[in-house]
Amino acid sequence: MAETKKKCCKKSAAKTCETKKSCSTKAECCCKHYEELIKEIKSYKSDLDKKDFLLTWEQSEDELKRVLAVAEILKLFRDKNISSKVFETGLGISIFRDNSTRTRFSFTSACNLLGLGMQDLDETKSQIAHGETVQETANMISFCAEVIGIRDDMYLGAGHTYQVEVADALDMGHKEGVLPNRPAMINLQCDIDHPTQSMADLAWLKEHFGGLENLKGKKLAMTWAYSPSYGKPLSVPQGIIGLMTRFGMDVSLAYPEGYNLIPEVEQVAAKQAKANGTKFEIVHSMEEAFKDADIVYPKSWAPYAVMGRRTELLKAKDMDGLKALEKECLANNAKFKNWECTEEKMKLTKGGKALYMHCLPADITGVSCKEGEVAASVFDRYRLDTYHEAGWKPYIIASMILNRRFKDVAGVLEAMKERATPRINF
Amino acid sequence: MAETKKKCCKKSAAKTCETKKSCSTKAECCCKHYEELIKEIKSYKSDLDKKDFLLTWEQSEDELKRVLAVAEILKLFRDKNISSKVFETGLGISIFRDNSTRTRFSFTSACNLLGLGMQDLDETKSQIAHGETVQETANMISFCAEVIGIRDDMYLGAGHTYQVEVADALDMGHKEGVLPNRPAMINLQCDIDHPTQSMADLAWLKEHFGGLENLKGKKLAMTWAYSPSYGKPLSVPQGIIGLMTRFGMDVSLAYPEGYNLIPEVEQVAAKQAKANGTKFEIVHSMEEAFKDADIVYPKSWAPYAVMGRRTELLKAKDMDGLKALEKECLANNAKFKNWECTEEKMKLTKGGKALYMHCLPADITGVSCKEGEVAASVFDRYRLDTYHEAGWKPYIIASMILNRRFKDVAGVLEAMKERATPRINF
Amino acid sequence: MAETKKKCCKKSAAKTCETKKSCSTKAECCCKHYEELIKEIKSYKSDLDKKDFLLTWEQSEDELKRVLAVAEILKLFRDKNISSKVFETGLGISIFRDNSTRTRFSFTSACNLLGLGMQDLDETKSQIAHGETVQETANMISFCAEVIGIRDDMYLGAGHTYQVEVADALDMGHKEGVLPNRPAMINLQCDIDHPTQSMADLAWLKEHFGGLENLKGKKLAMTWAYSPSYGKPLSVPQGIIGLMTRFGMDVSLAYPEGYNLIPEVEQVAAKQAKANGTKFEIVHSMEEAFKDADIVYPKSWAPYAVMGRRTELLKAKDMDGLKALEKECLANNAKFKNWECTEEKMKLTKGGKALYMHCLPADITGVSCKEGEVAASVFDRYRLDTYHEAGWKPYIIASMILNRRFKDVAGVLEAMKERATPRINF
Repeated sequence: MAETKKKCCKKSAAKTCETKKSCSTKAECCCKHYEELIKEIKSYKSDLDKKDFLLTWEQSEDELKRVLAVAEILKLFRDKNISSKVFETGLGISIFRDNSTRTRFSFTSACNLLGLGMQDLDETKSQIAHGETVQETANMISFCAEVIGIRDDMYLGAGHTYQVEVADALDMGHKEGVLPNRPAMINLQCDIDHPTQSMADLAWLKEHFGGLENLKGKKLAMTWAYSPSYGKPLSVPQGIIGLMTRFGMDVSLAYPEGYNLIPEVEQVAAKQAKANGTKFEIVHSMEEAFKDADIVYPKSWAPYAVMGRRTELLKAKDMDGLKALEKECLANNAKFKNWECTEEKMKLTKGGKALYMHCLPADITGVSCKEGEVAASVFDRYRLDTYHEAGWKPYIIASMILNRRFKDVAGVLEAMKERATPRINF
Repeated sequence: MAETKKKCCKKSAAKTCETKKSCSTKAECCCKHYEELIKEIKSYKSDLDKKDFLLTWEQSEDELKRVLAVAEILKLFRDKNISSKVFETGLGISIFRDNSTRTRFSFTSACNLLGLGMQDLDETKSQIAHGETVQETANMISFCAEVIGIRDDMYLGAGHTYQVEVADALDMGHKEGVLPNRPAMINLQCDIDHPTQSMADLAWLKEHFGGLENLKGKKLAMTWAYSPSYGKPLSVPQGIIGLMTRFGMDVSLAYPEGYNLIPEVEQVAAKQAKANGTKFEIVHSMEEAFKDADIVYPKSWAPYAVMGRRTELLKAKDMDGLKALEKECLANNAKFKNWECTEEKMKLTKGGKALYMHCLPADITGVSCKEGEVAASVFDRYRLDTYHEAGWKPYIIASMILNRRFKDVAGVLEAMKERATPRINF
Repeated sequence: MAETKKKCCKKSAAKTCETKKSCSTKAECCCKHYEELIKEIKSYKSDLDKKDFLLTWEQSEDELKRVLAVAEILKLFRDKNISSKVFETGLGISIFRDNSTRTRFSFTSACNLLGLGMQDLDETKSQIAHGETVQETANMISFCAEVIGIRDDMYLGAGHTYQVEVADALDMGHKEGVLPNRPAMINLQCDIDHPTQSMADLAWLKEHFGGLENLKGKKLAMTWAYSPSYGKPLSVPQGIIGLMTRFGMDVSLAYPEGYNLIPEVEQVAAKQAKANGTKFEIVHSMEEAFKDADIVYPKSWAPYAVMGRRTELLKAKDMDGLKALEKECLANNAKFKNWECTEEKMKLTKGGKALYMHCLPADITGVSCKEGEVAASVFDRYRLDTYHEAGWKPYIIASMILNRRFKDVAGVLEAMKERATPRINF
């Protein structure tokens, strides 16, 4: 134990140990937390080094817990000024087929934490790429790539498919000796799932409630909310119901009639809830979902059927059709302006104190729009919580990269701690 | 002393010591300069680690001198092949709300010198951000940020305000534990001041005249000059009069009637001159300003009143109004084509040999435009001087970052020298 | 020998040694290859540290071989997990005056392999820059630059000229003390040559045929091919005939009447072939060129005369003229749709098994276009070969940078091997 303490506190890396205020012998306390997490990681079975993490429901519970624990250690290391650089050189490649600020910065941050430089692939061509070309592009950009992150959420039925195509191309390229290593593929949001978001959300819930075991029996309300915009992807609510139904929570999914998600994903959630002995319900009243909820996640999205029509119009580049669809949808949305997370609705939740969550940016009534997803006073009360929630994303992504690239992730982390290179080298 | 010499010349870092030609025992000589600068830095009182460097006139003389001295050591280190990397990982974030080549490259260079990767925030939305949103964006991009550099000089009354809002948001985020550290905020040009430019200019004057003490009694002419373009920001001339009036120079500000700067900044310059026992005058004749000047800085800008009208039109997105204003202003500018830095005017300066300065790019008559700010022959004679002037910017920015992030900057520099990691590692 | 083996296999850097399957004592085998290459490099005379590598025919055979050998060692190092980082800090600057994905990623990869960060200069202005401005821009972006890579292939008579201007500006800046070092200038494609492509092609031929000496007597057919696009640069075919005529190969250049390259470059090729005792012929039949060829390189380009007219129209911003020219050229191209690399034509080559090459992306009939440069079945058979070909580019560029920046490149590589810092640090 003494030895462990010495290692943890060695050189300037340990200086920041003293800054945490909540424990008496700080360095030891941090070491304890670290020791527990490392033990956890070693106990989980994982094949994450052999497959890409594209949908959370394709991963085992052990694998998901491992991603969380590795992310926690990476965050701890940063707080303790321990460098988590594992690549002396190497590139992180990003492909954003939709605008992004938060995810872009999170991905860059994750790559940078591990020592990677960044190169963005700016696709001027907007058409959905097909077989041959995807294979070639994937290989051409990957000669020195360690990780490729892709956001492709605009086209229903296409985003996930594209990521699988890229993944297959990378497998081929590596197998045939074109690529010296197989880059990790990170799903930065597709049409089906948004795993870096939902896993960051889960990490936040684990932190907020003091452990995954404390999520058991909690009720989470994932509800549609009114927004004056249209065409928002389905991947956040799908990601939430596809993940949270596995961690002991009862999930209530609420939306106005017709605003359903991809049916197969709703089925996944139902099946998982059943297998885990929890509840998954679909209701058509925000109030009903909020009733006695411990956690609420009110967020707008476009109905599945609309996303399908939109995809066809986008493929056909039918601008008039898109405009007409937008008009129709906004008019339909407007019927449900009462789907707003107000103080009144919050009172329905458990003790009136449910945790409010959002992937940000939220449409805040009177702030970012006239009428939106959430009342300003509610958002204000939980603003910092949503920032903490978002703050997990860089570490979740970095954890996914490490888990994909290294079988012995615990060994990698132990080497970082042993080495104890100060991140800020002074 | 022997020990110091050994340290300075240790390993390959010292190889380049031999390249300087002007001193007999080069390594020792460089060490002497270094020792003096370190001693200087230690002698200056500074709160730069507790506040952002947004306007030079908000900083003490000690703090300004400290920024200069740290920049000089960083430049010395680079010449001696000593790495100034202090961050193993970490990001520099840039927000350019106006086009930029020079400042962008200087900021990237500064971040790179210290070991930071770069991520640019490309704001597609051109509207001026308000309260809530600024706070959120500032936090969302900063989870792994060590420094944020902002250029926002288009809107009179808005640029500095925006930077203060971002700074406040970062303070809040750090205080509330959202951000693991408080990133440095670097003003890469606002509507009021351009401190990285004016401080680079001062560093150049210090180098050129062989020390700050030699600037005493010198006359600097900051004058408007004709340019066939319109809408150039006021921040360079404002930065110059707001800084140079504090270092013993008599400053003559010259412009055609109506081309005044922000009145408050002109008052700051006058007040400082008075406090420092130097002169600050406003004249309406280029010849009068040039008379006996030791330094001339002829540069175009748009009148304060025009910038105010332009800001309103930009906010209202009144394109026709903007076009009309541009036409009106160009016509007005054209009345003052004789405000050109010609050979004749240069003859009026001290011994006909005043130092010509410019922030670049200059509008050179017959080269970059038909009629401009400066005659080709004058510019040619001082071309290299202006390049040397510009060359200080990366080091000034890096110095501002170090001063903001480390209380004991001298200690950081001494650790770099002690470590003596070769920047080019061969 | 024992000592050498120990060094090679030291620490985790050697771990990957075991992954190669083809030799019994792997580590030793890799060391042998390394030792041979280092010996080679030391034997070649080179002035590459004193001049920019803008056109291959301006370099000596020794210098070209040295670039290949250094690239091979860099690739070997990466395979063996040995870091080739030589810059602790420093920037690679890119200027792309034409779109690019492959070359952009190769350049970024090369810079990253050596430890450099990236900054792209985005020229919003499309006009061809002149004297003064080029000099200034070149210096302003280079205060912390170690290498500048330029693609400028749109304007006949301008691209190479621009690169020479930048190079001269950098020489001046360094000589006058504006720049602390002279950045390497890398030609990422100009109007005359595409040396990073042709050298990568040569590295691939060396690998594929097991050594440069095995290229002697081989016939290479560089032929025009039909494509439904227009305005493709001449620099690839020019680069190939300007380089391959020096390495023992007989080069047959084939194109429809009127589709000739820059006459001076065709003359260079002819002269070199004569000096090297090989053949260089120009024919107007794809079949004739393919006859008994060991290597075929079918690729579309625009006729020299058309590129000349296009340059004038681009300069004059004559959009109608450009459209008319495009129409005329596409119509002319369409006369030569039979210039396709089909299975039938491949049967004409040596044993029906010539190596197919392409700089990618190829216009593949029925895949990326209706009718194109190559039949899908031919391309499919050689797809992986073209990927391997492309994979050399990052290492060729990194080699060019090292050769330009270090006189004693062998020493630099030996230091990397001795240091044996693992690239993936675990």
